[in-house]
Amino acid sequence: MSGKLRIGLLGAGRIGKLHGTNIQNFVPEAEVTILADPFLNPDMEAWAASIGIPNCTKNPEDVFASDEVDAVFICSSTDTHADFIIKAAAAGKHIFCEKPIHTDISKINEALAAVKKAGVKLQVGFVRRFDRSHKAVRDVVASGKLGKPFVVKVCSRDPGAPPMEYVKVSGGIFLDMMIHDFDMVRYLSGSEVTEVCSTGAVLVDPRFADYGDVDTAIVTLKFANGAIGVIDNCRQAPYGYDQRVEVLCEKGTVQDNNHLENEAFVSTAETVESAKPTYFFLERYNDAFVSETKAFVAAVLEDAEVPVTGKDGLEPVRIAIAALKSLKEGRPVKLDEIEG
Amino acid sequence: MSGKLRIGLLGAGRIGKLHGTNIQNFVPEAEVTILADPFLNPDMEAWAASIGIPNCTKNPEDVFASDEVDAVFICSSTDTHADFIIKAAAAGKHIFCEKPIHTDISKINEALAAVKKAGVKLQVGFVRRFDRSHKAVRDVVASGKLGKPFVVKVCSRDPGAPPMEYVKVSGGIFLDMMIHDFDMVRYLSGSEVTEVCSTGAVLVDPRFADYGDVDTAIVTLKFANGAIGVIDNCRQAPYGYDQRVEVLCEKGTVQDNNHLENEAFVSTAETVESAKPTYFFLERYNDAFVSETKAFVAAVLEDAEVPVTGKDGLEPVRIAIAALKSLKEGRPVKLDEIEG
Amino acid sequence: MSGKLRIGLLGAGRIGKLHGTNIQNFVPEAEVTILADPFLNPDMEAWAASIGIPNCTKNPEDVFASDEVDAVFICSSTDTHADFIIKAAAAGKHIFCEKPIHTDISKINEALAAVKKAGVKLQVGFVRRFDRSHKAVRDVVASGKLGKPFVVKVCSRDPGAPPMEYVKVSGGIFLDMMIHDFDMVRYLSGSEVTEVCSTGAVLVDPRFADYGDVDTAIVTLKFANGAIGVIDNCRQAPYGYDQRVEVLCEKGTVQDNNHLENEAFVSTAETVESAKPTYFFLERYNDAFVSETKAFVAAVLEDAEVPVTGKDGLEPVRIAIAALKSLKEGRPVKLDEIEG
Amino acid sequence: MSGKLRIGLLGAGRIGKLHGTNIQNFVPEAEVTILADPFLNPDMEAWAASIGIPNCTKNPEDVFASDEVDAVFICSSTDTHADFIIKAAAAGKHIFCEKPIHTDISKINEALAAVKKAGVKLQVGFVRRFDRSHKAVRDVVASGKLGKPFVVKVCSRDPGAPPMEYVKVSGGIFLDMMIHDFDMVRYLSGSEVTEVCSTGAVLVDPRFADYGDVDTAIVTLKFANGAIGVIDNCRQAPYGYDQRVEVLCEKGTVQDNNHLENEAFVSTAETVESAKPTYFFLERYNDAFVSETKAFVAAVLEDAEVPVTGKDGLEPVRIAIAALKSLKEGRPVKLDEIEG
Repeated sequence: MSGKLRIGLLGAGRIGKLHGTNIQNFVPEAEVTILADPFLNPDMEAWAASIGIPNCTKNPEDVFASDEVDAVFICSSTDTHADFIIKAAAAGKHIFCEKPIHTDISKINEALAAVKKAGVKLQVGFVRRFDRSHKAVRDVVASGKLGKPFVVKVCSRDPGAPPMEYVKVSGGIFLDMMIHDFDMVRYLSGSEVTEVCSTGAVLVDPRFADYGDVDTAIVTLKFANGAIGVIDNCRQAPYGYDQRVEVLCEKGTVQDNNHLENEAFVSTAETVESAKPTYFFLERYNDAFVSETKAFVAAVLEDAEVPVTGKDGLEPVRIAIAALKSLKEGRPVKLDEIEG
Repeated sequence: MSGKLRIGLLGAGRIGKLHGTNIQNFVPEAEVTILADPFLNPDMEAWAASIGIPNCTKNPEDVFASDEVDAVFICSSTDTHADFIIKAAAAGKHIFCEKPIHTDISKINEALAAVKKAGVKLQVGFVRRFDRSHKAVRDVVASGKLGKPFVVKVCSRDPGAPPMEYVKVSGGIFLDMMIHDFDMVRYLSGSEVTEVCSTGAVLVDPRFADYGDVDTAIVTLKFANGAIGVIDNCRQAPYGYDQRVEVLCEKGTVQDNNHLENEAFVSTAETVESAKPTYFFLERYNDAFVSETKAFVAAVLEDAEVPVTGKDGLEPVRIAIAALKSLKEGRPVKLDEIEG
Repeated sequence: MSGKLRIGLLGAGRIGKLHGTNIQNFVPEAEVTILADPFLNPDMEAWAASIGIPNCTKNPEDVFASDEVDAVFICSSTDTHADFIIKAAAAGKHIFCEKPIHTDISKINEALAAVKKAGVKLQVGFVRRFDRSHKAVRDVVASGKLGKPFVVKVCSRDPGAPPMEYVKVSGGIFLDMMIHDFDMVRYLSGSEVTEVCSTGAVLVDPRFADYGDVDTAIVTLKFANGAIGVIDNCRQAPYGYDQRVEVLCEKGTVQDNNHLENEAFVSTAETVESAKPTYFFLERYNDAFVSETKAFVAAVLEDAEVPVTGKDGLEPVRIAIAALKSLKEGRPVKLDEIEG
Repeated sequence: MSGKLRIGLLGAGRIGKLHGTNIQNFVPEAEVTILADPFLNPDMEAWAASIGIPNCTKNPEDVFASDEVDAVFICSSTDTHADFIIKAAAAGKHIFCEKPIHTDISKINEALAAVKKAGVKLQVGFVRRFDRSHKAVRDVVASGKLGKPFVVKVCSRDPGAPPMEYVKVSGGIFLDMMIHDFDMVRYLSGSEVTEVCSTGAVLVDPRFADYGDVDTAIVTLKFANGAIGVIDNCRQAPYGYDQRVEVLCEKGTVQDNNHLENEAFVSTAETVESAKPTYFFLERYNDAFVSETKAFVAAVLEDAEVPVTGKDGLEPVRIAIAALKSLKEGRPVKLDEIEG
């Protein structure tokens, strides 16, 4: 491929705007040539114009049909992801798709089959893999210098609960929130999850129970390489976005601390106060969003392997379904029990 | 009681010597008047003399019978703890007993009944409650200023695996090692454990499997107050004694870092290096051992409640038995299933 | 002023490119309409095109004469700053000027007089004021909650020495490097420096002595508000860019730590290793460069006061000249001795 | 020497009690056989009895004359130190003397001559050399792995100002407080100070000025090995005892953080709070006091060199006198100007 990678952006919601802005400002090897959003409005058009996106449409088909699109960024609502993948693949476009591909495994498999058949590239938006601290942890593990992984731990908490309208349709804490952590443990351990066991509670807001959901959950995991692990999630951490990972290995442990708003601290007769963790994912994973896009663009332009594959999109969904089953049935669930 | 608290020390092994030295050097309100150890040897006698213990005997009965003993410190082998409690109680002596009281719940109950009948005080040696950092965490939770506890987390790892001779008789990772953490979660949460679910693996040394034990374990917990929790243990953390706790509450989280050998750090073109965590429990909980003894002595002298009760000795054993059952049966186990 | 602030960029060296890119990518309220560089070459033109700068010229006069320029960014060589300020002021353009304005105080005064006469705005590029950690320190001091400042400390070290060609013309450690710290102590203390006393040494590279310069220096300071302070500089800190400030006040102290490359750390039997400080000013002050530009643009568009004034450009030069005099004469030097 | 080192303790004020208690409780190779204090009272006698000191006297001569004394600990008022050294040396006793030996250099020289003539050992009580963090910093420098020292920095602040009665007779901030830091920079750098330049201010309490003293001071230093350095002191740091050192070397920097009261920290929506530094020298240097005594006892028993010599007692006094002269005369002062 010569010249810039030409991108069709599907969706101009929060995440679509984030990717669009990043591509236009920070990824000189790519450019957004068209934006499609069925709810396209003047604000979206003004935003598109302000960052130099030349075309806007309400019809996603315009993107798939365009000669000026080499790749698509699927940032539309979750239920459309799989279908858009299938259409993009049929049109021979490379695909960056926000997570999750779908919450229905057979639909994911259908999409992955279409990608395979078309021979296009598909990268899934597990952005945390591109965070500099998490990546540093993983690189130490992957280097092998600490020996075999023994215990993989992820602590992941949002600053506050989402609106109940969102909870209603989110698919629940495992599919919506912990899915990132299911990806993270695979990334950190370099191994597949074979069994999960869930514990959960409704502590933040009783309305989570109305939707059959929990707001606080701990899931233990077994890995194919023999390691074990644990993830804890909570929908409410008023001090900010709590994102810490650790891998205890044979010869030592590697972990990371939260990123803070700044490095100042004040010491008085009463206390020592420092800055809080960065507020939420936009603040914490700001750089990582750019990095994942650069990685996708480079993989396409250089015809290399994408760093987060279709299988990486599928497995966390399977683990999330297993975790939900474990919670409902009050027993450990093997991944074998879940459609693959 | 007037004057110093006169203590009969039962056992001059590692932990007995530790307590004896602490009492003589750091607890001016108490003095050891007699040491009993069935394996009494010249080294032990020399040690006793060096710190001013005036009498030594091979016969524990001499301690129970002595008019110069107000309280006993039971630092003998675990299998003798319950019987020594019963004898001390019958003799009207107050009792400090190393953990665990026994691994058989009915035996513990028998000992507690004897204590109750005699009206003496019994404090169990869960020393970590007296660590300044863990105590600071608990004090924040207990103050209520962070609201209700949501998630209780304990990470506890030994620097290296014990000798296999010890593993053979230790009762396994839950009764020997994680029992401290079962105490810790009760202490931190201010609530009782109602259910546990265990995951374990043999990763450090395959010989653990020979004894039906695991060397790495994660246990999730449910508490009566609605909170959930998780403990992770590993027999091998080559970087030192890893002892971290956290309680996520409604309004924030409180946690602690490891204590380091020193606060120096070196920055070069290659790396930034700081000191490691303190090596093991003698280094980390050195001050805490003194504090627990002072607390016991004060409780006796002032006729106040001891800070770690007989029930505090019983419950962690019940939780450990439940955790072992969970591991064996591959399912969550309610504490109700375990003899109370 | 309606619409975007139209900026003429003077100089396309490292710092010019940095500002140009920042304006085009991160400051939607502004746009670069023309670039002037006497050494304009195809690479610069390509860079300008890639970020959407429509016009390039070798002649700075084109910028001053342009109707499409509301403000200039002076990023040319130091010796041109004052003259460009005078010309821009005469043309009624607002001015952002990189530091230092000049190393000759009368020339600075001439430039400031021109600015005053023209009634345009002038902001000087002391970028560290916009660093989130330093700013947090200063905000605590300025809030008054710690009471009066007692001691102001700045530690500032470059990762490695600059090329000797640069040392030859840089003006020396005080005018080239410590000048940032002279600005910082004024910013942190909210007070003027009244006296300095310098100590210096040639430790990094003996060739510094060939140019009458030192490569390591410590300067103590007295402030008009009674506080005292100290700055230490070294041209070589192989572990990265060391940038730490502290203000001890009546009721406590406020300080900051370095920013690290990431927050991961590895603990082994040998050591605990964490990430190093960010490498140099581009890494550390990346965000601050954007913030200072946004602040300038906002000040012009809203006709508000600029956050770093002409006086803020003048005073650090006077302090640097005093510090150099102190080093040469081996005595404390009062600022009164230096032309104002 | 066979058996325990028998120590005569001179002075039962705060520091005398500290050393006496440490020897009796933590230094099994030594024992205090006699206490002398001209102001001996029943409380002191009770204290002596409680830790097993068999003899008490008001007359220091009883100590020098005793056959049961191998070494003396001089913990009396500063003005008596030199005379007691001379008397102890004449009596053939080894000597541990609290700092400073005297504030009059000829008196120090007289004492050191007496020690030399008698061939006894003399260790001066610069306790901070035995702090585990400062020692770790020094050990890195001394190892040579970071190359030559460039900059030596010490920050040392007391939590609060002493009573004015003490200020009146203390000899001033340089002889009373910064003298520890003058010792520290010699210890850290492994080199002699050749020149100092002082800056000071009265900021904490105006009454310091009444005694010709300052309460806040910064002293820059030059070392024989070419390094330069800076010490900052303040009589008031309400957040606790601030004790930080750093040595920037050719290949990196080594520094230490304060020791904290505990390692817990609380994160809320408002702030992140951690524990404060340890309160004052008794808390911070608690372990170091024991270590210095063990080192002295070992040096005597094994006839090895003491770790803090008579010269180490003399030089900081010379530096302090030079620093005071620099402050008074407003100019750098070479150590050559001070009697040696």
